[in-house]
Amino acid sequence: MILNGVEIEDTFAEAFPMYYGRVVITAATRRWALAAALEAKGLGTSSTMKPRAPGEAGIECEMKNVDTPDGRPGYVLIVGEMKKEEIAYYLITRIRKGAFPVPTTSAFDVMPKEMVVDKIYVKGTPLQTFGDGFEEIVDLYGRSLYKVPRMDGFFYVDTQLGITRGVAGGNLLIMGESQAAALLASETAVNAIEEVPFAFVVGAYGAGPAGSGTKVGGLVYKDATATLNHVYCPPIANKAKDSKVPQGVNCIYEVCIDGLNLAAVKTAMKVGIKAAVKIEGVKKITSANFGGNLGTTMINLRDVLP
Amino acid sequence: MILNGVEIEDTFAEAFPMYYGRVVITAATRRWALAAALEAKGLGTSSTMKPRAPGEAGIECEMKNVDTPDGRPGYVLIVGEMKKEEIAYYLITRIRKGAFPVPTTSAFDVMPKEMVVDKIYVKGTPLQTFGDGFEEIVDLYGRSLYKVPRMDGFFYVDTQLGITRGVAGGNLLIMGESQAAALLASETAVNAIEEVPFAFVVGAYGAGPAGSGTKVGGLVYKDATATLNHVYCPPIANKAKDSKVPQGVNCIYEVCIDGLNLAAVKTAMKVGIKAAVKIEGVKKITSANFGGNLGTTMINLRDVLP
Amino acid sequence: MILNGVEIEDTFAEAFPMYYGRVVITAATRRWALAAALEAKGLGTSSTMKPRAPGEAGIECEMKNVDTPDGRPGYVLIVGEMKKEEIAYYLITRIRKGAFPVPTTSAFDVMPKEMVVDKIYVKGTPLQTFGDGFEEIVDLYGRSLYKVPRMDGFFYVDTQLGITRGVAGGNLLIMGESQAAALLASETAVNAIEEVPFAFVVGAYGAGPAGSGTKVGGLVYKDATATLNHVYCPPIANKAKDSKVPQGVNCIYEVCIDGLNLAAVKTAMKVGIKAAVKIEGVKKITSANFGGNLGTTMINLRDVLP
Amino acid sequence: MILNGVEIEDTFAEAFPMYYGRVVITAATRRWALAAALEAKGLGTSSTMKPRAPGEAGIECEMKNVDTPDGRPGYVLIVGEMKKEEIAYYLITRIRKGAFPVPTTSAFDVMPKEMVVDKIYVKGTPLQTFGDGFEEIVDLYGRSLYKVPRMDGFFYVDTQLGITRGVAGGNLLIMGESQAAALLASETAVNAIEEVPFAFVVGAYGAGPAGSGTKVGGLVYKDATATLNHVYCPPIANKAKDSKVPQGVNCIYEVCIDGLNLAAVKTAMKVGIKAAVKIEGVKKITSANFGGNLGTTMINLRDVLP
Repeated sequence: MILNGVEIEDTFAEAFPMYYGRVVITAATRRWALAAALEAKGLGTSSTMKPRAPGEAGIECEMKNVDTPDGRPGYVLIVGEMKKEEIAYYLITRIRKGAFPVPTTSAFDVMPKEMVVDKIYVKGTPLQTFGDGFEEIVDLYGRSLYKVPRMDGFFYVDTQLGITRGVAGGNLLIMGESQAAALLASETAVNAIEEVPFAFVVGAYGAGPAGSGTKVGGLVYKDATATLNHVYCPPIANKAKDSKVPQGVNCIYEVCIDGLNLAAVKTAMKVGIKAAVKIEGVKKITSANFGGNLGTTMINLRDVLP
Repeated sequence: MILNGVEIEDTFAEAFPMYYGRVVITAATRRWALAAALEAKGLGTSSTMKPRAPGEAGIECEMKNVDTPDGRPGYVLIVGEMKKEEIAYYLITRIRKGAFPVPTTSAFDVMPKEMVVDKIYVKGTPLQTFGDGFEEIVDLYGRSLYKVPRMDGFFYVDTQLGITRGVAGGNLLIMGESQAAALLASETAVNAIEEVPFAFVVGAYGAGPAGSGTKVGGLVYKDATATLNHVYCPPIANKAKDSKVPQGVNCIYEVCIDGLNLAAVKTAMKVGIKAAVKIEGVKKITSANFGGNLGTTMINLRDVLP
Repeated sequence: MILNGVEIEDTFAEAFPMYYGRVVITAATRRWALAAALEAKGLGTSSTMKPRAPGEAGIECEMKNVDTPDGRPGYVLIVGEMKKEEIAYYLITRIRKGAFPVPTTSAFDVMPKEMVVDKIYVKGTPLQTFGDGFEEIVDLYGRSLYKVPRMDGFFYVDTQLGITRGVAGGNLLIMGESQAAALLASETAVNAIEEVPFAFVVGAYGAGPAGSGTKVGGLVYKDATATLNHVYCPPIANKAKDSKVPQGVNCIYEVCIDGLNLAAVKTAMKVGIKAAVKIEGVKKITSANFGGNLGTTMINLRDVLP
Repeated sequence: MILNGVEIEDTFAEAFPMYYGRVVITAATRRWALAAALEAKGLGTSSTMKPRAPGEAGIECEMKNVDTPDGRPGYVLIVGEMKKEEIAYYLITRIRKGAFPVPTTSAFDVMPKEMVVDKIYVKGTPLQTFGDGFEEIVDLYGRSLYKVPRMDGFFYVDTQLGITRGVAGGNLLIMGESQAAALLASETAVNAIEEVPFAFVVGAYGAGPAGSGTKVGGLVYKDATATLNHVYCPPIANKAKDSKVPQGVNCIYEVCIDGLNLAAVKTAMKVGIKAAVKIEGVKKITSANFGGNLGTTMINLRDVLP
C-alpha cells in the first residue's frame, strides 16, 4: 500500500499482553507535576536486560486541573510489566522512587473502571509503611486515600490502584533516506501518538524514537537475551546476508507503542503512520515482528489504516 | 552559627562510600543529548526499597562540544552504587536502557584518571553483545571504542569505563516558615550545587528538592527498610514525641548530594547553604544524620562554611 | 470575603476594550510549533512605554493535531492592541517576525466566527509581499490561503484574519507573607488560568506572575507615562504615605489577564483566585484599579466568585 | 572547497556595523532567569519591517552564579540596533518590558570594558522613573546601581550600560537534500555557535534556523522593504530564472549571526560550518550577500575555515 508516496509494507506488529497501572501524578504547579512524572517514568524504555529493571513506563498525557481528583495540574503515568506478580512492585516503586520525593506531589488511580482486571493494595507497600504509623486513611475527593506525612506536607494516594491487561509490542519502523529524515518523521509520529488516549510511545515525553531495534537472542552471542535486529540495520546492511533494508534507506527509527487496549495501540499506529508519511525523505514504513512466534495478537498495518 | 539571619545547626551529615561511574552522553544536537541523559538518570533518586532499583544517578553538568571526545553536545552522567559487584550492572544498564535507544547518541568515559580505582569492561555486557558480532573495536578520538551498529548509525562507547570510590550521603535539610519558602530556597541551593564539579544533587536536572526524608527502619513497621524521618516532619510535629521541628517551621526539603570525592560534596554543601539563606522565610538549615552509626565520614556544617 | 482563610477584597478590576487577533501557529513537530509561538508572543507583556512596542501578546493554549487546519501540532497565539488602526500592524508583525522565520511553520486564523468584528487583509502586508510574486492564493483545508514560498518550503496563512473586540485589564494582586509564597501562589493561579479558553495571562508560557505593577503617570516624575503602583509596593510600604500593603504582606505579584470576551476574563480571575488561596502564606488577594476612571467595565471580585 | 564531502562555496557574507548592549539578567533561580531572558529577547529576529520593531536581540550564553555580579543564576542578553540614537531605546525597552516584570530579576552591564564605545545612562529612562522617586542609587557589588522598588522586592540595574560597535550580517545558508537534513544540520550549527563568546544566532535559545531568507526590495513589489531571496528558494527554483539552488537541494536554512566583534562572528561561522557538514544529506553551504553593495565588511568563507 502506498500512502503519500510512501510504501507501507503489508506486514504486522506482534503484540503481546502486558499488565498496566495508570495513575495521575499531581502537584502544586504544572512544572512540578511534570518533573515528578518524568522522574517516575524514567528509565522506562523497553529492555531485554535481565533482570528487567524496572519495567516499562511512559507518560500518556497531560491532565488538566479540572480533571484531576485534587484539582491540581497532573500528568498521567502508565507503568507496565509482563508478569502479574511483579506489576505491583514496579508500579509502587515508580510512584515511591519517582513521584513521592518530588515537592508537593500526590498520585491518584485513573484506570477506567471498566478496564480494571485486578487491584493493587497499597497497604503493606513502602508507600504506606513510609508513614510509620503516622499515615491515615481518609475519605477525600470521593476516594479512599492514604494520607502519608512527608517533610513538606501530605502525600495522598489511593488505597487501591487498578490494573488492566493491555497490549505491548505495537511498533512502527520508519525508514528514511537519511538519519535526519527518519528522525523528523519519527518525531512527528510520536507527537501524533501523544494525542491518543490510553496509548503511549515508550520513551516519549523526552525522547521517543528509538534507534535500538532488537531481535530475540543472538546469532553469534547465543546466550544474549536480545541483540540488534540485524535485518533492519542500515549501517551493516551490506554485511548481513538476510538484510531487509531497502535500497536508498540509510536510517531507521522504531516507535514502540504500548496501550491499555488493542484499539488504542491500533489508533496510535494509524496516526503515527499518517503523520510520518508527510515528511520528505521517508522511504518506507513497516513493523517489526518475530514471525508470529512471540506475540499473541498480530496487528496488520493494512488493518490499522483506513 | 548564623548566616544571613538563618541558623545553621552545628551538626553533621553522615557520608558513606559509594562506587561511581562517570560518562558523557553525546548526540547530534544538544536537545537529544539532554533527552538521553535525562532518560539515563531517570528513577535515580535514592531509595531504600529492596532490591534497590536501579541505583542512584544524576546529571553532573552540561559538557560543551569543544570538550567532548566526539565534538558533539553532551551531558555528564554519574551513576552510583554501594556494592562494587553491582556498579557495573547499573552503569551498563543505565547506558543501555537510557542513552542507547535515544537517537544519535554515544557514551564516553570521563572519569578523571587520577580518580580511577577500578575499571568496568564493556566486553560481555549487553552494550557489546547487542552488536551480535557486527560490532568492532576501533581507535578513535584517542580512545579504544566499541563501534556498535544500531538502526540509525553507530553507537560508540569506551571498551573500559573508569570507576571511582566516592561519597554519598551529603545532605541539607532546608527548613522554611512555609512550603513555598522552603521550596524556593531549596531550588536556589540546587541551582548553586549544579555548578560544582564532580558533585550532583540526587534528582536534579528535573527535580532536586526532596520531601521524602527517611530514617533507617521503622518504629511501628519494624520490618520496613526505611520510613519517614519523623523527627523532621512538620505535618506531624505535634504527634511525634521526639520531634525536632523548630517553632515556626512548617516545611522542610532535603537536598541530597553525591560526589566523586569528599571535597566536592563539601563544596556542594557550602554553596547550597549560602544560596538558600538568601531566601526570605528560611528559618534553619541542618543535616540529617543517624547519630554517626551509619556513615563512615562526618561532614560538619561548621567545617564546610568559611 | 474569606476563601480558604484568605481575604478576597471587595473591589474590582478595571477592564477596557482591546482588539485581538487569534491565530494558531503550526509546525512539523510540536517542539517547533512551540518555538515559533514563543518567539511570536515575545516581548508581549503590557507596557506603558511609548511607542508601545509591540502590543500585547500571549499563548492561549496548545492545539492538538486533530484540531488544527493542517493536522499538525499547534499553539494558539493571541495578539492585542488598543487602537484599531494598529492591530493589523502588530498582528502581521508578530506572525512575520516571530513565527514566519521558524522552520516548517504556518499560521491559521482561529478566531471564532461569532466573535469577528473586523477582518485584516493579508494582501499588501509583508506576509504577502514577501513572496515577491511567487506567492499564490490556494484553496486548502476549506480555506482561502496565501501559499508563500520560503527557503524551506511553503508558509500558509489565511488571506483574512478575524479581529474581535475583547477585554484587557483583568488582574489579580496576590499578596504573600514572603516572596516565595506570593510567587508559588501566582504560579498556581497562572497554571489554572492557562486552562481557560479565550483568555491568557500576559507573559505566561514562560513567565506570568509580574512584579511590575504600575499606576498611570507619576507623582514625582510627572511626565512619566507610568510608574510603580506605590500603594501596593511592599519594599517601600513604610515610605509611601498612602500605602495599602496590609500588615504581614512582604511581596505582591500581579497576574494580568486578557481575554477575547468579558466572560473569559471573569472565569480566568475566578480560577486564578481559587488556585492561589490553596497556597500557604497567601495573605490577601485584590485587584488593581484606577478608581474607575480608566476602564469601561468594572469586574467585581465578589461577582467572579461563586 | 570540500569539507567532509560538502561543498563550501567560495563566497562571502556581507557584514555591517551594529550597536550592541550586553547585560546579564539574573534571578533567584536559574529557571526564572531564563524566563526573563527569553521574554527580553523575544521577537528579536531580524526583520526588514518598518518601523523595525523592536531591534535584534539574542541570548549569548548562560552565566554561572559564580560569575554574575549578584551571585545568582543568569543569562547574557545582547540587544542590537543599527542606529546609535535608537540603541538606548531598544536596550532599555527590552530590559523594562522583558526582564523587569519577571519575578526576582535584576540586570547588570557585562559589556567588556575594552569594547565600550559609548554609554547609555539609565537616568531619565522608564527603568529609573518607574521608581517615582522611591528609587535610589546604591554602591553594591562594586557597581553604581539603581535600586528600583517593585512589588516583589528591588530590581537592580547599573546606572550606565556599555555599548559597543559590533558586527551583524554573519550568516550561513545550509542546503540539504531534504527539509529534515537541512534542519538537523542547522540545529547542530546553532548548538555549536552557542558556545562562541560574544556571538549569538538570531533567534537561538528557542529557535535559530531561519527559513525566511530575504533580498533587499522586490522585483514585483517594488515598494517592499524586503522580499524573499528568490535565488536561494528551492520551492520556486524552477520558476525563478536566476535561481542558484543546486541540483538535489530541496531545502535551505539560514543561520544568522551577530557578534560584538568581527572575530566572534568569524569563529561562529567556522564552528557552524564544521558542525553542519557532519550531518548526512547536507549538500552545500554558502553565505548570502548582496554583491558587496550593502555591507562594509566581507567575511570570506575560505578565510573563516582553517
